[in-house]
Amino acid sequence: MRIALLGGTGDIGEGLAIRWARDTSHTVHIGSRKPEKATDRAEDYREELTDRGFDVDVTGSGNEQAAAEADVIVVSVPPQYAADTVETVSDGLDEDDIVVSPAVAMDRDEAGFHYERPSAGSVAEEIATATPDGVPVVGAFQNLAAGALTDLDNDLDYDVVVTGDDSEAREKIQTLAEEIEGIRALIGGPLAVSGEIEGITPLLINLAMNNDGMHDLGIQFK
Amino acid sequence: MRIALLGGTGDIGEGLAIRWARDTSHTVHIGSRKPEKATDRAEDYREELTDRGFDVDVTGSGNEQAAAEADVIVVSVPPQYAADTVETVSDGLDEDDIVVSPAVAMDRDEAGFHYERPSAGSVAEEIATATPDGVPVVGAFQNLAAGALTDLDNDLDYDVVVTGDDSEAREKIQTLAEEIEGIRALIGGPLAVSGEIEGITPLLINLAMNNDGMHDLGIQFK
Repeated sequence: MRIALLGGTGDIGEGLAIRWARDTSHTVHIGSRKPEKATDRAEDYREELTDRGFDVDVTGSGNEQAAAEADVIVVSVPPQYAADTVETVSDGLDEDDIVVSPAVAMDRDEAGFHYERPSAGSVAEEIATATPDGVPVVGAFQNLAAGALTDLDNDLDYDVVVTGDDSEAREKIQTLAEEIEGIRALIGGPLAVSGEIEGITPLLINLAMNNDGMHDLGIQFK
Repeated sequence: MRIALLGGTGDIGEGLAIRWARDTSHTVHIGSRKPEKATDRAEDYREELTDRGFDVDVTGSGNEQAAAEADVIVVSVPPQYAADTVETVSDGLDEDDIVVSPAVAMDRDEAGFHYERPSAGSVAEEIATATPDGVPVVGAFQNLAAGALTDLDNDLDYDVVVTGDDSEAREKIQTLAEEIEGIRALIGGPLAVSGEIEGITPLLINLAMNNDGMHDLGIQFK
């Protein structure tokens, strides 16, 4: 399978890219608005993995090319750019592809971080409105801390919740998530319940701010 | 310490009552709109604990009396009655008391359960608006499944997030929560971040509905 990480030069994109490159045989492709930046970062990730003894192929290009060539397109850009980013790559999407939303919209005030629920109900649903009809959209990976993912010395032990209206697409992403060592992926339901999952991320930051010794938090359900 | 569980005849009230009665030396008092129902249920809880070899005292009365005599008042009623219930007992509250909000407002549609955020921001903040000035309000226990709490054969292993604007009150409830075996209590921040915690509860129900073998789910942060 070929995975594109749009905005894959950012920290959550980096984390998913290097985990998939290390733990699976899937092809990982970094996308960016600036192709050169994507190529450079892809080389950084490759080098880090080579230094650790993994001989993997991570490539980079503009977002449009990355999306057109991929089977799974992860929109790992800041939430305010998510829908626009999908629109710019939409010509390269077809019904066999799966668009994945890991983004969360938050704001901060004196009390801490809050979930800023988009009018569509969630960032995942906002992305769905920008995605061509027939191309499945799946929400996943919202509650993973970039700091935990990007540090390959850190053994993961987290749950991910996967939502989507197309159950086949949802199960493919569930499998793809569980191929990362230390991730268990649970089914949350249709895309319309993504808001409750996105809303956990600001809570994770608040907990890290308010409890000594806690950082880069994730969740487990039991 | 004397703990009142207003609406303590319901399942979350029952769960907290029997856990505190079993695991601590605090006095547990069941409140209900109907004093006789509270007395009957208190006897049920006492009998269950006696059968298990615990000699504890659990008493029952009307909500007003329960609140007036208690140091910690847990508003374990359905969310739509939470503010009204606090108003009916407000004459018995003073600045040394702590009002605790474990309630979550949810609705359900064909996609699953959703968090129904009150206009105040959370049920905890809604309760705060109904509580006399100077009486601290703390959010806690929202993400514990009643089914897990009420089954005393079930060893707990869950996190609870505690929010509140009065840090002393918040820490008292943190301690009270951790006195229940198997509970770790984390500080979430001021009361204004309670919504993100309440929002987890519908997700827990959605996960139980969509994943085989999962039920009465709770959460852990790590």
